[in-house]
Amino acid sequence: MSRLSFNQITSGHASLAEAVNACVKHGVEWIAPWRHKLSAKPAEDARLIREAGLKISSLCRGGMFPAATAAERSERIDDNRRAIEEAATLGAPVLVLVCGPAPDRDLDGARRMVEDGIAILAPIARSAGVQLGIEPLHPMFAASRSVVVTLEQSLKMAEPFGPEVGVVIDAYHVWWDPNLYSLIERARGRIAGFHVSDWIPLLADPLMSRGMMGDGSIELRRIRAAVDSAGYTGPIEVEIFNESLWRKPAEDTVRLCAARFEERVL
Amino acid sequence: MSRLSFNQITSGHASLAEAVNACVKHGVEWIAPWRHKLSAKPAEDARLIREAGLKISSLCRGGMFPAATAAERSERIDDNRRAIEEAATLGAPVLVLVCGPAPDRDLDGARRMVEDGIAILAPIARSAGVQLGIEPLHPMFAASRSVVVTLEQSLKMAEPFGPEVGVVIDAYHVWWDPNLYSLIERARGRIAGFHVSDWIPLLADPLMSRGMMGDGSIELRRIRAAVDSAGYTGPIEVEIFNESLWRKPAEDTVRLCAARFEERVL
Repeated sequence: MSRLSFNQITSGHASLAEAVNACVKHGVEWIAPWRHKLSAKPAEDARLIREAGLKISSLCRGGMFPAATAAERSERIDDNRRAIEEAATLGAPVLVLVCGPAPDRDLDGARRMVEDGIAILAPIARSAGVQLGIEPLHPMFAASRSVVVTLEQSLKMAEPFGPEVGVVIDAYHVWWDPNLYSLIERARGRIAGFHVSDWIPLLADPLMSRGMMGDGSIELRRIRAAVDSAGYTGPIEVEIFNESLWRKPAEDTVRLCAARFEERVL
Repeated sequence: MSRLSFNQITSGHASLAEAVNACVKHGVEWIAPWRHKLSAKPAEDARLIREAGLKISSLCRGGMFPAATAAERSERIDDNRRAIEEAATLGAPVLVLVCGPAPDRDLDGARRMVEDGIAILAPIARSAGVQLGIEPLHPMFAASRSVVVTLEQSLKMAEPFGPEVGVVIDAYHVWWDPNLYSLIERARGRIAGFHVSDWIPLLADPLMSRGMMGDGSIELRRIRAAVDSAGYTGPIEVEIFNESLWRKPAEDTVRLCAARFEERVL
């Protein structure tokens, strides 16, 4: 249980302080804050988390590289520089990258924009002591959130770099992949994070359709064991976008996450 | 335009006769009937289609192999035998296979059930002069409709067999794949069908969320050119599950399909 990390989006309506308190109450040792939940002073957020005795597994999120014009792409890079600074200030070891959709129908062009963006950010991240974690999203988000949609693709993007660029494996996004287990092994040494939730039937908004571990179709224990076998010993984030879960008090959500983590993931 | 085939599900509420008449009126030369739209006498359906001057590109669909018990799996095989017979009676050169979801969380086990089913059916299909077309579905259907979710995976399943087992490439299901163009080239000689529609934002029912060509995110012309380059010269089916499209008269739908096919696919 010492590896369980509460990704803050799992209580999407709670403040950072509420999420921190819920973790403390239920013995969860790690938290993954989201940038839009931070205050204007990340150093104070860092103190709030540290003084509660929690460790930070990652900061969500940077990325969103592709854009129609060079000026827009440059603005996205600037925002990612700020995200790296915030991660460093917080003491978050990893900045999760959700790479963004294409501005048009040219997927390959958008994928080159992602590669260009990561090439610019990698040395900045290295200097800041922050690892970039390229997270492939489920292919159903290819048009809306990320042109990076497979673990193989994220590994190809990370492998030209040193350890400052890794991949984030989210079971929800990759569970369907026929090559999943060989790709997890290939990710040895590059695994910057591991996220769990479950696949339930899609709801009106696919983004908000994730389920609690055990409520859906994913062979979570097998995937967790494969990630372990590939040498990853870090925190495991529970990250669930689901409006009905968000309506619960953060304490109830954290308690349920901890119980299901023990029952269905470990 | 001589390659355009109207997949009957694109007018999901129309009868076979209505769909046939709409094709004749708008100069569409091919049609792909669905089994649940056939009468109890496929020979009469075949005559209806032939006498209208139409050719059949494929019959939709067989598959749905995985099941919890051997008895159920055997029933599914029997149903696929009937589907092959119906395809032969119709003169459909291809039976499209939608391979089915897992009965539990064991994706690999379900995938073996698919392989076992295809191994049983392949010689039956060869004898009947019908090609089996393994259609990978979009990974968002991995839990509900098909454990076969990539073109690579369907090719690996088809390649041990002779030409009696091929793959069906549906742009909607595969457009997101970072390896798409190399996989299309690998499919040379195995392409049993090519389907087009478009990716639009997901609606309440993902199954019913396909868009008309040109209304969404897919680089259709590039994919069509790649399929051509891989040596496929057969009919190209328009296959769109979309309730708002289904509410139109079949004639309007066929006219729109033909126009968009010329504008956005050729």
